[in-house]
Amino acid sequence: MTTPIDLNCDLGEGFGAWSMGDDAALLAVVSSANVACGFHGGDPTIMRGVCEMAAARGITVGAHVGYRDLAGFGRRPIAMPATQLADDVLYQLAALDGIARAAGTRVRYVKPHGALYNAIVRDAEQAAAVVDATRAYDPGLTILGLPGSEVLRIATVHGLPTAAEAFGDRAYHADGTLVSRRRPGAVITDPDEVAARCLRLVTAGELPSVDGEPVAVAARSFCVHGDTPGAAGLLRRVRDVLTEHGVPITPFA
Amino acid sequence: MTTPIDLNCDLGEGFGAWSMGDDAALLAVVSSANVACGFHGGDPTIMRGVCEMAAARGITVGAHVGYRDLAGFGRRPIAMPATQLADDVLYQLAALDGIARAAGTRVRYVKPHGALYNAIVRDAEQAAAVVDATRAYDPGLTILGLPGSEVLRIATVHGLPTAAEAFGDRAYHADGTLVSRRRPGAVITDPDEVAARCLRLVTAGELPSVDGEPVAVAARSFCVHGDTPGAAGLLRRVRDVLTEHGVPITPFA
Amino acid sequence: MTTPIDLNCDLGEGFGAWSMGDDAALLAVVSSANVACGFHGGDPTIMRGVCEMAAARGITVGAHVGYRDLAGFGRRPIAMPATQLADDVLYQLAALDGIARAAGTRVRYVKPHGALYNAIVRDAEQAAAVVDATRAYDPGLTILGLPGSEVLRIATVHGLPTAAEAFGDRAYHADGTLVSRRRPGAVITDPDEVAARCLRLVTAGELPSVDGEPVAVAARSFCVHGDTPGAAGLLRRVRDVLTEHGVPITPFA
Amino acid sequence: MTTPIDLNCDLGEGFGAWSMGDDAALLAVVSSANVACGFHGGDPTIMRGVCEMAAARGITVGAHVGYRDLAGFGRRPIAMPATQLADDVLYQLAALDGIARAAGTRVRYVKPHGALYNAIVRDAEQAAAVVDATRAYDPGLTILGLPGSEVLRIATVHGLPTAAEAFGDRAYHADGTLVSRRRPGAVITDPDEVAARCLRLVTAGELPSVDGEPVAVAARSFCVHGDTPGAAGLLRRVRDVLTEHGVPITPFA
Repeated sequence: MTTPIDLNCDLGEGFGAWSMGDDAALLAVVSSANVACGFHGGDPTIMRGVCEMAAARGITVGAHVGYRDLAGFGRRPIAMPATQLADDVLYQLAALDGIARAAGTRVRYVKPHGALYNAIVRDAEQAAAVVDATRAYDPGLTILGLPGSEVLRIATVHGLPTAAEAFGDRAYHADGTLVSRRRPGAVITDPDEVAARCLRLVTAGELPSVDGEPVAVAARSFCVHGDTPGAAGLLRRVRDVLTEHGVPITPFA
Repeated sequence: MTTPIDLNCDLGEGFGAWSMGDDAALLAVVSSANVACGFHGGDPTIMRGVCEMAAARGITVGAHVGYRDLAGFGRRPIAMPATQLADDVLYQLAALDGIARAAGTRVRYVKPHGALYNAIVRDAEQAAAVVDATRAYDPGLTILGLPGSEVLRIATVHGLPTAAEAFGDRAYHADGTLVSRRRPGAVITDPDEVAARCLRLVTAGELPSVDGEPVAVAARSFCVHGDTPGAAGLLRRVRDVLTEHGVPITPFA
Repeated sequence: MTTPIDLNCDLGEGFGAWSMGDDAALLAVVSSANVACGFHGGDPTIMRGVCEMAAARGITVGAHVGYRDLAGFGRRPIAMPATQLADDVLYQLAALDGIARAAGTRVRYVKPHGALYNAIVRDAEQAAAVVDATRAYDPGLTILGLPGSEVLRIATVHGLPTAAEAFGDRAYHADGTLVSRRRPGAVITDPDEVAARCLRLVTAGELPSVDGEPVAVAARSFCVHGDTPGAAGLLRRVRDVLTEHGVPITPFA
Repeated sequence: MTTPIDLNCDLGEGFGAWSMGDDAALLAVVSSANVACGFHGGDPTIMRGVCEMAAARGITVGAHVGYRDLAGFGRRPIAMPATQLADDVLYQLAALDGIARAAGTRVRYVKPHGALYNAIVRDAEQAAAVVDATRAYDPGLTILGLPGSEVLRIATVHGLPTAAEAFGDRAYHADGTLVSRRRPGAVITDPDEVAARCLRLVTAGELPSVDGEPVAVAARSFCVHGDTPGAAGLLRRVRDVLTEHGVPITPFA
């Protein structure tokens, strides 16, 4: 029997008159939607729209919480007190869940965004803040993050369900770290290559690395960035190849 | 048997490093706390602090939702589509309720703030937006507003509980409208006078007006603005006078 | 000798990670660039980028000032005190001019955006606020606005240069008002039609109206909205047709 | 002949309905006013009010530029690209200078705020960004900063005037660094002690340290924080003691 895999993507990252990514197209191909909560992107109307589409399609909704930084799209590290960060995460999570419930669904997991996602790979204080806020809101929520990250470790310590993810459109080093976006080849945009990588992840538990030997990656979810060119097409190809090989595509939460 | 009355006040209206009003002192004298939700004032850390204090004291928490306008403190009318307003209200309400639950309490009612409060006295579209958002989140929530306002009328039509309030620190015209803040005498700051007005409201169902004859006011709650000079002292005096006269001070929701 | 005409367009209306319109393509076809100043759209980095491109191409820069409303993109009317509005306009204008000077050019005119643009067609107080702020900053700046608007009238009273504009991509009523965007046919997107309208405006001082008879329009500038589909292509066609007919395309300021 | 000293303080740090510090009282006792520019605090109306008061009193105005972070009051380090920071600084500086000119004065210097102030003591990239923006706007502006900081070093390299400041209300270590605010005794609030420290700074070029021996401090300006309790009274005492001892209080710029 084949291991199931989840396909996740960031959605609802527009703001007011500004759009980002093709939410409707992406919702047709993912199994889990990381929905922005208004601090780095997303506004209440966009959030409701995405939640309604996700509810209609049976796509699982996660809270894509970020630093309060519209001007920086949540991509700039902000050194802030952990308790304040926990309050910001709780606020975003609760706001999205209220909107999700009004739309007929619920928030099932939390996946931090951008600079916060990166910070909590190593920063135990900020990671604990994310875990604390999630537990305070609902201890049944899953934390989705990088394998081996502080946030997944701390979540496990506190009894929260966790899920690890691999990046389908990003090149890896042999030590499991991502190749910096500034280097050529860091972002993989060929649908067949991304689909092949995903299949290898599911069937062999490994991904090719830029350093030659493969890297072992244990991941229950496969992430494609919504702003990667042709993201919906990439995910469509991944979905088709997985289906051809009998791999079930199911949400982790 | 004497009719009970509720004392409500706006709280948690600081933002970041900026404070407004003395939340702790006000929480010692009110029975219901209208807690700002981050759009006109309030931030997640302030919201949590006020909710924790309210929970510890058994004070009822309400969502003091407003226009998204930190620069104008929610006091500037914004003409916006009703569906967008409903989304903004739902977002704020859900965010506060999540924080309230983490603090051991719940949001029990919704009282709009500032320019939104004034708008929904007469604007049926914006009033319906507030009612829709409240119902979508939780049809058991009470709407607190001006007697005779569109928002209370529409809430009643949709089966939502409502409560009407009188303004303890504001002068009234004989037709029941408030005297404009720009006129002298519009704001009443003498504790004995405010207390006497409140007692008259509870026992006789009326308030004095600037036009001579009294005005009939049916109100289950009595509001003192947190930014009125000496607001906590005013409310303390009101509370003492009511207690002396055997008037129960109980939340409406 | 043929009357010259100016082609103006809104530019720099992205914010942070969000883009809007194709600034580079539009700068290749306009003679005047209305550059957003950060309150409804635009951020300092985008502003500098647009100013540098405008300076390199010799395109005249104007301050596209708006209400402080990123969430509403400056399209929602905000009722605010006139002195506060004047301060907001002065702030935006000065910020853009500082950036323009660092980029080797200057702000030459002021054209309000969105809901503010519409408000000052009739609202004398808000119109005076825009004029006051502009005069306080530099009485040599031109105000660009709707023919017959309060803002142009008041600017003239105070000795400010003014320029009137016609909308190339919008249908007109016979009384000179624009057809509401909500009606079909309100936005004209066929390049040949827009070019023909512009030519008629320049040569005959009139535009066709939806009501049958033409409407007289005295305009020194011709505006195409940057978010109209194919805006750069529209303007390219307008420019070509004008050039074929010997109409000089020159900035008004 | 006695060395002159400048007294500087942060002003205009309210926002909308929120006030911070007593701007009018502080303007009566400082010689230089660091005016917030809207990114960490301050709004256009507050900026104009402070500039008008400063102009009326002949107080020198400086641009108190900060990170774009109203929620954190500019006190949270934000890791951002240097070019983006330079754009943000230029925007704030130009906005304030436009308002200052409308109020009859000019910006004469730049003093970064909070986390940015601290960052550019050591971070050469962010320090260079502040210097670049200042030079781009007006190479005659002075940079006010910590003695020995990167920002003053880089400003000097590029030919900008600089001024070093000492903190009158903060305890020093013997190595010249400030005692952390978290430690008791870090903030000095006794007016006589602050005045005595200032006098010693002016006459002996040194300040007492918490480690026993005095620390040499070369400073042309003496800063008291506007949010230190009794700041205006502190500065009044400093001013009186300096005057009694014949020390001229004059702006550096």
